[in-house]
Amino acid sequence: MGEFELIRRYFASAACAAGAEGVALGIGDDCALLAPAPGEQLAVSTDTLVAGVHFPEVCDPFLLGQRALAVSASDLAAMGATPLAFTLALTLPTADAAWLEGFARGLNRMAHNCGLALVGGDTTRGPLSMTVTVFGRVPAGQALTRAGAQVGDLLCVGGVVGEAGGALELVLGRQQVAAEIAEPLLARYWSPQPQLAFGQALRGKATAALDVSDGLLADCGHISRASGVALVIESERLPASAALETLLGAERALQQKLGAGDDYVLAFTLPPRHLAELQAQWPQMAVVGRAEAGEGVRVLDARGQDITPRQGGYLHFME
Amino acid sequence: MGEFELIRRYFASAACAAGAEGVALGIGDDCALLAPAPGEQLAVSTDTLVAGVHFPEVCDPFLLGQRALAVSASDLAAMGATPLAFTLALTLPTADAAWLEGFARGLNRMAHNCGLALVGGDTTRGPLSMTVTVFGRVPAGQALTRAGAQVGDLLCVGGVVGEAGGALELVLGRQQVAAEIAEPLLARYWSPQPQLAFGQALRGKATAALDVSDGLLADCGHISRASGVALVIESERLPASAALETLLGAERALQQKLGAGDDYVLAFTLPPRHLAELQAQWPQMAVVGRAEAGEGVRVLDARGQDITPRQGGYLHFME
Repeated sequence: MGEFELIRRYFASAACAAGAEGVALGIGDDCALLAPAPGEQLAVSTDTLVAGVHFPEVCDPFLLGQRALAVSASDLAAMGATPLAFTLALTLPTADAAWLEGFARGLNRMAHNCGLALVGGDTTRGPLSMTVTVFGRVPAGQALTRAGAQVGDLLCVGGVVGEAGGALELVLGRQQVAAEIAEPLLARYWSPQPQLAFGQALRGKATAALDVSDGLLADCGHISRASGVALVIESERLPASAALETLLGAERALQQKLGAGDDYVLAFTLPPRHLAELQAQWPQMAVVGRAEAGEGVRVLDARGQDITPRQGGYLHFME
Repeated sequence: MGEFELIRRYFASAACAAGAEGVALGIGDDCALLAPAPGEQLAVSTDTLVAGVHFPEVCDPFLLGQRALAVSASDLAAMGATPLAFTLALTLPTADAAWLEGFARGLNRMAHNCGLALVGGDTTRGPLSMTVTVFGRVPAGQALTRAGAQVGDLLCVGGVVGEAGGALELVLGRQQVAAEIAEPLLARYWSPQPQLAFGQALRGKATAALDVSDGLLADCGHISRASGVALVIESERLPASAALETLLGAERALQQKLGAGDDYVLAFTLPPRHLAELQAQWPQMAVVGRAEAGEGVRVLDARGQDITPRQGGYLHFME
């Protein structure tokens, strides 16, 4: 089976030959052609997931397909971009029909949920891994970067952080727990919901934004450095997760909230004048701190004491 | 070392923080922002190279860096697109400084030659592989697809095909030969020169185009199917390669010219009225056949006898 045929057969429902808004030419030529409207910019992000590193060698291909796309789509949410299209570079040890069918079903479902059309890709033989590149549209000058946080802004998150990190304990088989606790955590890990609509709602309001992928502490560090402000996280304001706290206890749950990187929830800075309007529409968001003059990120407990961990977040090739 | 730092340190000379024409935001945020001019479409292509499949496990990282980008840039040439930017997803077993330095030097050099700015990427730990996604600009409606060939068009190639395929015998150590024969072949394999300017010159002239990556015969099959025409290749008109013919003899050299896929030379169909003007400017191009009514691809020898091989070109997951 040729690679185009392989891609076409399994990914047909996400595939876009042409005609979707903003897509002039889809799968099957040397390049796809994207056609943003005048005045729009194109947001682009690339992420690779490697078996044994980012997910277990043996796992449900449906869940993996969902997750592979959601991880990248979350980067569009973080820029406030409107989803447009994606390419998939899939490296497989063998062309296993059942695996491909499951993976494609998960990918297609997430593509449909996110409004992303598959416009191209590559299929190669090798150790299992996948690279997804996503494309979104954003009016020129309105993308949410990491660089605009101002002293006096509120530091906010788009929802609960840390649950997917807690789930990793279960995914890797390190811990076992009752289904009613495991299931909500596992859902967060395997089926992250990129906050796409929320990201678009933040355009023109948030001064800096990203999706939590290295862990809240490390990601706040990215905003802090890019914007030239200090960020303060008030730990008791981090949204509660009964499942996470039952699984790990309060202290380790807090570590996950600060350090875990798989939730793909947005973190952003917001001038206080926009808070009421946003919160009315997005009740799951939470204010968790503030931007101050200075540099770095500090974590304070309920009494205002500094409890900043020395190292937060997961860095590849960290030595 | 964090991944951004890793990327920044080694790929700094290809990296684009912002400011290049068409790039509104480069490396370091959740997404890059591309800003095509009004009336322009964005051509996108993704290619993965896997160690042990697409290149030897042990090879010169400088040459690999060159080749990894050239392979994808060639897809822009095939669409007639003007190079804009690329992302690199690099998966490495270890963060080896000498290897990274060499790879980045090769990649940066090819990026500079092609006019491509690095705008984003991902660095992950795992078996060695790399996925490059390239972006080019093309005026709306002027991209060269595979679908426009007309009965009566000439079938042309942009230069010698088959040399990189011959080089593979040397790269994999299957054959040894004098340096004056090996060197031009190896150069074609390791430092393919994407025909970017030539591809742009074909805009508004060629009716269908692609870059030879599956082998001329298989790639002509792609044009034939997409355009609904038959293509005839006259084997004696394929450009001669003294090095290839010395290495393999006439018959195996012809097999490489028809079946080898690593040259990244353009193949295209051209109404005869454009031939003289193009040839005057691009003397290395050659007419190698014609488009006829019907379907499929035939190869004829000097006496007009059908010598079409039963199977040409390399297909991934071919069974």
